[in-house]
Amino acid sequence: MWIVLTYDINEKRVNSIRKICALYLIRVQNSVFLGEIGWANLRILRDKLKDKIIESEDSIQFFILRDEKLVRRIKLGVSYEFSNII
Amino acid sequence: MWIVLTYDINEKRVNSIRKICALYLIRVQNSVFLGEIGWANLRILRDKLKDKIIESEDSIQFFILRDEKLVRRIKLGVSYEFSNII
Repeated sequence: MWIVLTYDINEKRVNSIRKICALYLIRVQNSVFLGEIGWANLRILRDKLKDKIIESEDSIQFFILRDEKLVRRIKLGVSYEFSNII
Repeated sequence: MWIVLTYDINEKRVNSIRKICALYLIRVQNSVFLGEIGWANLRILRDKLKDKIIESEDSIQFFILRDEKLVRRIKLGVSYEFSNII
């Protein structure tokens, strides 16, 4: 599977959330990660994030695709793929 | 087509970018919009945004899918679908 993960996280928690995401995905914008991931790791990632966030304050969205080929990407402006740089 | 649009925009320009995106898509997080859109409108949206951003500072990504059914969404925490509220 290939996923895009986006988040809005309270300043107090954003670094710890970023560190967890960087273990599994590549950061492409401040609050956007993406990459190939299996179901088992996706469940682990989701549960780790669920433990860290405060549900009434923070927001995380997973956009899950069977295959990267199903999505076409267009980028405007600066494009950086942080390979695990937090 | 169904798209997810994510951005990192300089504070000075973010409101004008948000207003343009809200004309075509639904805001689901601070810097994430999504929704159904045709090719013609997608080109118009892309060109309007291209005119506004400073390419060396701002970043916009379009994730374009043929159909919403191709993506599965999981949401953690707060979930708000701003229907054109900026």
